[in-house]
Amino acid sequence: MLKDGERIDDLQLKGLKIIQNENGFCFGIDAVLLANSLKIKNNSTVVDLGTGTGIIPVLIAGKSKTKKIFGVEIQKDVADMAIRTIRMNHLEQRIEIINRDLKDIAGSVIEKNSVDTVVSNPPYMHSNGVINENDKKAISRHEISCTIEDIIKVAYDLLKPMGRFFMINRTLRLSDIMYYSRVYRLEVKTMRFIHSKVGKAPKLVIVEMVKNAKPESKVLPPLYIYEEDGKYTREVLDMYSKEEL
Amino acid sequence: MLKDGERIDDLQLKGLKIIQNENGFCFGIDAVLLANSLKIKNNSTVVDLGTGTGIIPVLIAGKSKTKKIFGVEIQKDVADMAIRTIRMNHLEQRIEIINRDLKDIAGSVIEKNSVDTVVSNPPYMHSNGVINENDKKAISRHEISCTIEDIIKVAYDLLKPMGRFFMINRTLRLSDIMYYSRVYRLEVKTMRFIHSKVGKAPKLVIVEMVKNAKPESKVLPPLYIYEEDGKYTREVLDMYSKEEL
Repeated sequence: MLKDGERIDDLQLKGLKIIQNENGFCFGIDAVLLANSLKIKNNSTVVDLGTGTGIIPVLIAGKSKTKKIFGVEIQKDVADMAIRTIRMNHLEQRIEIINRDLKDIAGSVIEKNSVDTVVSNPPYMHSNGVINENDKKAISRHEISCTIEDIIKVAYDLLKPMGRFFMINRTLRLSDIMYYSRVYRLEVKTMRFIHSKVGKAPKLVIVEMVKNAKPESKVLPPLYIYEEDGKYTREVLDMYSKEEL
Repeated sequence: MLKDGERIDDLQLKGLKIIQNENGFCFGIDAVLLANSLKIKNNSTVVDLGTGTGIIPVLIAGKSKTKKIFGVEIQKDVADMAIRTIRMNHLEQRIEIINRDLKDIAGSVIEKNSVDTVVSNPPYMHSNGVINENDKKAISRHEISCTIEDIIKVAYDLLKPMGRFFMINRTLRLSDIMYYSRVYRLEVKTMRFIHSKVGKAPKLVIVEMVKNAKPESKVLPPLYIYEEDGKYTREVLDMYSKEEL
């Protein structure tokens, strides 16, 4: 079940667990913030682009009544961890991990215009397309090369009309996200900026886009991660503990 | 000097005054927030697109050592108020009001690629190009019809390479601003969201764009207008009182 360096962590959610690897494949708070910001209807179909170890599909499965969640992951060993996590949780009927380049899935593995909700917590690439320093090893091993534009284009192709795409990313990438979302007619409907504390510049943003919607973007109230004393805010604690989206 | 319904207000800044009209042509806090967010070098040339009664040029003249500030205003009676304000303050050498459609000025009234800083606090139009309810009378009287795209295009044409464009607008228009800024290569460098109070959704944003810069957008720490008790925050009070940008 477990390979070298791997461990099983309890998600404190209906008995769900996840296989992680101490060398760089542990989920962060971003995944939790994103999963808990989704609006997902019962029986809907969801796709997670760049699913990593499958944390977002597992959280969604645990907190909603989705019919099917596809997790797309290009890296073979990471996708393999996700597949074992799905089996361990007996979620094979609801979650399918696809070990493919996300640029190749629309119209081949997943039907176009068929998905209700797409989500993505992509690697935090710089403008030149390079993934952050810590992931350089991963790049050279796996030739990861997808851009904001690629992700938005795939999300557009997969979504039904008026389907929703939720992405978390660094605020540094916001101008790219907003430009390509307009180019591909995935209109930005809401943005929620994530501040470490009150008064600090937000480093992350959750952007909600709607396919073919009319252009009008709303900024939601801020999401603060920490209180002044360094403890998680009530909102973040609630995300970790609540059992429904 | 004054026409019907007009009054003179003291700006509490080096003796500067402004002529305003109680029926809709009084400057708001937006102008103060924008003017005080500018970085303006000595001897630089500045253009204010949609200057209204000239509040922003007057504040800039009072707080900086700019060489020349052009205020462009399409409405004849409002431009006339601005012209009288400039005379009253003996600022004719430093501020010039241009009563023209901003779409017609680049290359005719003001040389292209010649301006250091462009600023704009445009009427808050909806996505369909309509100005807010209160301004409908103004629209029908004056056939105001400029879009976010028009403003960004003119700013691009006027600015020197690496010149800066500062715009304040409603967050609802952010997707339009970010799309057209990329289209016209006025890259968004910083965004500062303006919240009425801590924890509230920001309704306004100040966007700083740089001509032909590389794409990487930074979100600055939030600007809060009011404290919990309804008083202005220290930062806003400082804007009203400080004598330099």
